[in-house]
Amino acid sequence: MIIAIDAMGGDNAPQEIVQGACEALSAFNNIEKMILVGDQAQLEKLVDLSLKDRIEIVHTAQVISMDEHPAQAYREKKEASITVASRLVKEGKADAVVSAGSTGAQLVAGLFEIGRIRGIKRPAIATPLPTLTGIKILTDAGANTEVTVKNLEQFALMGYTFAKILKGNKIDLQVALVNNGTEETKGTTLTQEAYTALRNNRKIPFYGNIEGNALLTTPVDVLVCDGFTGNVVLKTFEGSVKGIFTLLKNEMMSSLRYKLGAVLLKPCLKDIMKTYNPKTVGGSPLLGLNGVSIVCHGNSDHTAFFNGIKLAVECVEYHLVEEIKNSIVEE
Amino acid sequence: MIIAIDAMGGDNAPQEIVQGACEALSAFNNIEKMILVGDQAQLEKLVDLSLKDRIEIVHTAQVISMDEHPAQAYREKKEASITVASRLVKEGKADAVVSAGSTGAQLVAGLFEIGRIRGIKRPAIATPLPTLTGIKILTDAGANTEVTVKNLEQFALMGYTFAKILKGNKIDLQVALVNNGTEETKGTTLTQEAYTALRNNRKIPFYGNIEGNALLTTPVDVLVCDGFTGNVVLKTFEGSVKGIFTLLKNEMMSSLRYKLGAVLLKPCLKDIMKTYNPKTVGGSPLLGLNGVSIVCHGNSDHTAFFNGIKLAVECVEYHLVEEIKNSIVEE
Repeated sequence: MIIAIDAMGGDNAPQEIVQGACEALSAFNNIEKMILVGDQAQLEKLVDLSLKDRIEIVHTAQVISMDEHPAQAYREKKEASITVASRLVKEGKADAVVSAGSTGAQLVAGLFEIGRIRGIKRPAIATPLPTLTGIKILTDAGANTEVTVKNLEQFALMGYTFAKILKGNKIDLQVALVNNGTEETKGTTLTQEAYTALRNNRKIPFYGNIEGNALLTTPVDVLVCDGFTGNVVLKTFEGSVKGIFTLLKNEMMSSLRYKLGAVLLKPCLKDIMKTYNPKTVGGSPLLGLNGVSIVCHGNSDHTAFFNGIKLAVECVEYHLVEEIKNSIVEE
Repeated sequence: MIIAIDAMGGDNAPQEIVQGACEALSAFNNIEKMILVGDQAQLEKLVDLSLKDRIEIVHTAQVISMDEHPAQAYREKKEASITVASRLVKEGKADAVVSAGSTGAQLVAGLFEIGRIRGIKRPAIATPLPTLTGIKILTDAGANTEVTVKNLEQFALMGYTFAKILKGNKIDLQVALVNNGTEETKGTTLTQEAYTALRNNRKIPFYGNIEGNALLTTPVDVLVCDGFTGNVVLKTFEGSVKGIFTLLKNEMMSSLRYKLGAVLLKPCLKDIMKTYNPKTVGGSPLLGLNGVSIVCHGNSDHTAFFNGIKLAVECVEYHLVEEIKNSIVEE
């Protein structure tokens, strides 16, 4: 297995990216080689020398930054690190690409370099969300702001396929539609029609509608929605967690009694913050591309990026792309 | 000032509703009379005798329950408590109606009994959201799943008007559009066009777009969105808060050290839970109706319902309906 790394993408690139890549190379024996794409001079200095034989550097001077317009930047920078890394997957020189750079640029590079699976209308981001009842797959988490019923049906099928890989040992997986009420008659015209389509698709173990307040406690494994709603859910969740912990910290400093309580609870609070931090999960695959492309959070440190590579390894090992191809074959 | 109460609406009706109403009657001298609408025999037993002179009971045997289809129930139960209470506002016999019953039924009764303000296309629910940076008004919080640019513009104007009343002492109020990115070019066709409309409306102090992760920390006062997105934001927020506290409780019971820490921090945690519980704010007005109609949470206890009545008093005292009428006059 060969993994291509966009070594220049992300707030902490290339330092933390290369460190995460080297750690993954040490940890996973089934990674034959890692291809680091980026500025050769910078990358050479960061590579762990003991792993030199399993690392290849593909030099490029161009990078697409977070604030560039993805499609425009893609057209203008044909040799951007994310583009070159994605091209390696297309050419069969790598089995997966992992990046912490601009998600939009990664999506565009995925569409134009790797291409879509035949029959898939729109790729979707599938973000694993840590919750009280295990990890949920939220898809689409932001790639498509406007979607059709057919798109949602494909997101459901692809999300279900990904969930089966991520939760290998779990049987009875369930897929739900994010809506503003649990009843079949709730929602927009789109969600009402999607409800019917998901219920009638016998490949999808459809649970029904789910509301925002049940996202963290539901037994459901896959949460389907358009990318606008997915973005709102994900960011509201992140913001709520952050908001509560900020308030908690402020309050805990307000009296000696609370300070003492805080000291006693510190390890427990740290654990919870870590559990509920969507960033610690690592990465989100772009489902529907004809190759594995893993999106990591922009501010990934080496551990987060390591987890992103781990996810790429799992997706390659368990044939994510082939499984999605099989799942969408019309009978 | 006369307030009509739907005494039969809500999970804890009529007991907690009547108690909250009596407490409000004691607390607010500017309430001349409270009209309790519901089952006379039940209500008579619950009324605080010392307040008897300021309480009138209007008997009706019909109630619309939470799981009934609002429009259908409205047609079939012409004397439902929420309908009769709303009619009192229409007839000028009450200045406001407050209910913890079915929101859908209250909206339908509002539309057909009280009616809309001339020029307002669609009424919206405006929910006060407690955050680290004060209370934010989220509108529409669930009345309209599908909206136009014009609707969003009116929600912004009405939400801004309500915010001015609720935050009487605050200057420099700001209105933001909930979107999946901060840039002007982000979002759906609808949110992109709404961005332009809000920016060009010189009556609206427009801040720009806001993302889910900034909802609790932004200095903005009014958050505008369609009712589908508003419902998702509100419920994801509720679910996140609940999820974290559940995990916290479980963890705290897992060792003696943590148990001790929990005892020390108990008052502080209780405070935070109360602060972040959207239910404790009390009520949400239906903006755009030609009268004051306050929606309370279905599981309101007497304190929550008291707060809902307090909000009704403020809306009447500061002429919410007149102010909205003035705000939408085209120049």
